[in-house]
Amino acid sequence: MKEGDLVLVYRDQRSQYLIRLKSGNRLMTHHGDIDHDEILNHQFGDMITTHLGKEFYVLKPSHYDLMMKVKRKTTIIYPKDSGWLLLKTGIGPGSRVIEVGSGSGALTVLLANLVGDRGKVYSYERRRDILAAAQANIERYGLSNRVVFHLGDVARNGFQESGVDCVFIDVPEPWLVVEPAHQVLKGGHFLASLSPHIEQIKKTVEVMEQYGFKRIEVVEIILREIMVRKVGTRPKERAIVHTGYLLTGQKVKSQPLTRDRDDRNPAHR
Amino acid sequence: MKEGDLVLVYRDQRSQYLIRLKSGNRLMTHHGDIDHDEILNHQFGDMITTHLGKEFYVLKPSHYDLMMKVKRKTTIIYPKDSGWLLLKTGIGPGSRVIEVGSGSGALTVLLANLVGDRGKVYSYERRRDILAAAQANIERYGLSNRVVFHLGDVARNGFQESGVDCVFIDVPEPWLVVEPAHQVLKGGHFLASLSPHIEQIKKTVEVMEQYGFKRIEVVEIILREIMVRKVGTRPKERAIVHTGYLLTGQKVKSQPLTRDRDDRNPAHR
Amino acid sequence: MKEGDLVLVYRDQRSQYLIRLKSGNRLMTHHGDIDHDEILNHQFGDMITTHLGKEFYVLKPSHYDLMMKVKRKTTIIYPKDSGWLLLKTGIGPGSRVIEVGSGSGALTVLLANLVGDRGKVYSYERRRDILAAAQANIERYGLSNRVVFHLGDVARNGFQESGVDCVFIDVPEPWLVVEPAHQVLKGGHFLASLSPHIEQIKKTVEVMEQYGFKRIEVVEIILREIMVRKVGTRPKERAIVHTGYLLTGQKVKSQPLTRDRDDRNPAHR
Amino acid sequence: MKEGDLVLVYRDQRSQYLIRLKSGNRLMTHHGDIDHDEILNHQFGDMITTHLGKEFYVLKPSHYDLMMKVKRKTTIIYPKDSGWLLLKTGIGPGSRVIEVGSGSGALTVLLANLVGDRGKVYSYERRRDILAAAQANIERYGLSNRVVFHLGDVARNGFQESGVDCVFIDVPEPWLVVEPAHQVLKGGHFLASLSPHIEQIKKTVEVMEQYGFKRIEVVEIILREIMVRKVGTRPKERAIVHTGYLLTGQKVKSQPLTRDRDDRNPAHR
Repeated sequence: MKEGDLVLVYRDQRSQYLIRLKSGNRLMTHHGDIDHDEILNHQFGDMITTHLGKEFYVLKPSHYDLMMKVKRKTTIIYPKDSGWLLLKTGIGPGSRVIEVGSGSGALTVLLANLVGDRGKVYSYERRRDILAAAQANIERYGLSNRVVFHLGDVARNGFQESGVDCVFIDVPEPWLVVEPAHQVLKGGHFLASLSPHIEQIKKTVEVMEQYGFKRIEVVEIILREIMVRKVGTRPKERAIVHTGYLLTGQKVKSQPLTRDRDDRNPAHR
Repeated sequence: MKEGDLVLVYRDQRSQYLIRLKSGNRLMTHHGDIDHDEILNHQFGDMITTHLGKEFYVLKPSHYDLMMKVKRKTTIIYPKDSGWLLLKTGIGPGSRVIEVGSGSGALTVLLANLVGDRGKVYSYERRRDILAAAQANIERYGLSNRVVFHLGDVARNGFQESGVDCVFIDVPEPWLVVEPAHQVLKGGHFLASLSPHIEQIKKTVEVMEQYGFKRIEVVEIILREIMVRKVGTRPKERAIVHTGYLLTGQKVKSQPLTRDRDDRNPAHR
Repeated sequence: MKEGDLVLVYRDQRSQYLIRLKSGNRLMTHHGDIDHDEILNHQFGDMITTHLGKEFYVLKPSHYDLMMKVKRKTTIIYPKDSGWLLLKTGIGPGSRVIEVGSGSGALTVLLANLVGDRGKVYSYERRRDILAAAQANIERYGLSNRVVFHLGDVARNGFQESGVDCVFIDVPEPWLVVEPAHQVLKGGHFLASLSPHIEQIKKTVEVMEQYGFKRIEVVEIILREIMVRKVGTRPKERAIVHTGYLLTGQKVKSQPLTRDRDDRNPAHR
Repeated sequence: MKEGDLVLVYRDQRSQYLIRLKSGNRLMTHHGDIDHDEILNHQFGDMITTHLGKEFYVLKPSHYDLMMKVKRKTTIIYPKDSGWLLLKTGIGPGSRVIEVGSGSGALTVLLANLVGDRGKVYSYERRRDILAAAQANIERYGLSNRVVFHLGDVARNGFQESGVDCVFIDVPEPWLVVEPAHQVLKGGHFLASLSPHIEQIKKTVEVMEQYGFKRIEVVEIILREIMVRKVGTRPKERAIVHTGYLLTGQKVKSQPLTRDRDDRNPAHR
């Protein structure tokens, strides 16, 4: 364990803290305080006690934890949806990806972790205050060297990069970003977008079809937690049952279409 | 485009072929044939025609495609589930992970792609014929240098590695692998398991609690495809609505528990 | 047991027959034949054997069975959806209800059974062949005295009844039936509609709002079968995950609205 | 409109009151008061104003409203689940049904409304205070002549009726009620049970199989509300995603089984 490491200091569901270790710092909890230096003397998996004698565990944070623990100024993209988009787009070590709508940086964090040291994330945001929040989260996680932030309106001014492996869109009017995304995407590679309303999806699908995108697909993902307890096993009663619709498609180099190609896209099956 | 590249040759949902390019080879489809050399002269995103004049597109295959196109000898772990497990466990470039139950190698392929050149996947399988099938898929995808296969019964003989970042379990009796997984996992890191039946999950949770695992969580993921067509928008009528329950937990270095710690795990909320 | 009784002759999921008892008739199955007279000598719950010695059971058919066993010329309204609509609209003994779109008569059968001898179902259908099929199903079930069929286009010609307790709409353009439904519904009572596409729902909601309907609500219902077997318990793998969106609202006597009343309807929460 | 009528006085989702009209009574709301006599001078569907000039509507309450508005001392059976059970069991005008576990009387109300004047509901409850609450709800709804309440432990003392059309079980240990239910059910008719935990279902299925029940089926129902708004259309974000598992089966007159009949029940498909 060394300075700069991210650690989840965990007691139970209600008492868990994601911190970056820094000698001299002190974590304050409802169950008492813990010095970072104390943690620096331990390893992942160790038990540690507060000055009040309460037990905590030093756990490895996952992608899920990093995403859910960003300081939020906006709705974030949930892990269940990010996981799917990741699998559908094929991001991995070395990928160069664009994100439109930095938001709170939750997806930015995931992408930055997955592209590794040889990859890069280019994140565009229109609002200065939101961009600052995303940047702060990325810095806090020690990922600044993998992310380039741009303040600007992509629908108006386009992108500064080209030949990227993927474009992720999370803005209220994604259909306005299809054309610039088509310009900078490598051939055969993926555009992905997430929207809460079905009308947003419909408009974006329509524009993607005009630009000839192939394998346009839309899904939604419902997650239920299962409670395994002595009293019995059952899904948790209450849950978030809608976050958004997930849209993906692949660029091809054909001209914008004039005739109907409905039958070519899986979303028309 | 060069020899050894993986390419999705795509016409529509029913006519799509995942191939590895090799000069001199020839792809045969119901719509006519295409020489690999023809594809080698093109780029991703290009349109290409068969000897019968039918159009296909040269697309980049995603993780999803690689997983769904493995030659199957067993049920595979679906992308919707893999995406979640990936996010919950924090696998990324450089990770060293163990997989128990190679199966057809679908998850192996995903893991190998995500850990990158500096990571490693150790995949255990009890049945010789299944192992051979998984190996063939990994070779076909050009990932052999990232995967070490072991033929053997982990429940009986344990693992040959130690200090790994994650253990994935996909076997009929996952509870038998908890103890060896606990031995070789780094402290604070993740065990993950997937099972179709709730009884398998219950038994595995119970053993994980005996071994002191923290943040034991179980979820299930339901995915619906949405059809966006001229005639109207709606979810696809028929779908797979159950694949399995997804279980995760984190190792801590405490002794096996004797007292009840029900209240410490999220699955008991 | 007497002539005219409806009986489910059941062996297993694949071999079950809904018949109306008639002396002299003979049921032919893949496992052998059974005379209706043989069944007439038994009671519900009895075991009975075919001429090949195979066992069947004489079971009471439920609303579900009657609906699922109509001879189909169209897609039917599924029991899961009918059950919800029934609960939301308050149909019961003595109700007078209108149905637009007789279809195969599956919902007609349910309504006829629930309104009892003192209620009445008025069922409208535009296509002569479909109407004939619905009528045949109703006759087969011995419910003709509770159902009045009309051949005709409601959107053009309106209804012949007035002061009804409920109007059910199951046609491709339900929004065209809102105005005539508003005319014949009792004040404060329910209009209900089912559509597979979200665009149909949106248009219908819009027209309902113009006509001042209150408590406009839309839901969808997902049903999963659970398999309880020796090998383990889990949801069935494959299922129908979309049938339609269910829309309900209550008529009030206000004039058609000109101003926005978005905030008054639950669907706008 | 006459004294004793049930009326939903509705302004919006947050301001709605289910009342039984009684001359001289006064409804107090956050938006002002309304005399029952004022409502008695109106009809369903009319608009009415409080003494503060706020608009309310006089709406017909549905089964759904009656169920959701019982004064609750316990968790109630939700309409989505009741609707399904109703369709699977075939309750209708004239049915004689037993309910075990009166609870708050929500299901009792629905059953009483559906069996009509010629049917009867026999409702058993072990706890005196719960029984009193259910009785109060039934009286408030004017349904006392259709319901017979029994205070008592069915698992120990059995039922006082026989030859009933259906037995509904909603108690923590439903498997203890299978034997008495089998005794009093008509042959070929339905037992139905609802439980939140899968273990309860498994035990009950097992006992039902011992007693020879046929067509044993288990389902769960997930309901999503859809928001149709100017800003866009989407499912409501948060919802109850689990209430319970729904179990049904039909009695046959065979002896308790000794051999395995797994393949005969749909739940084993």
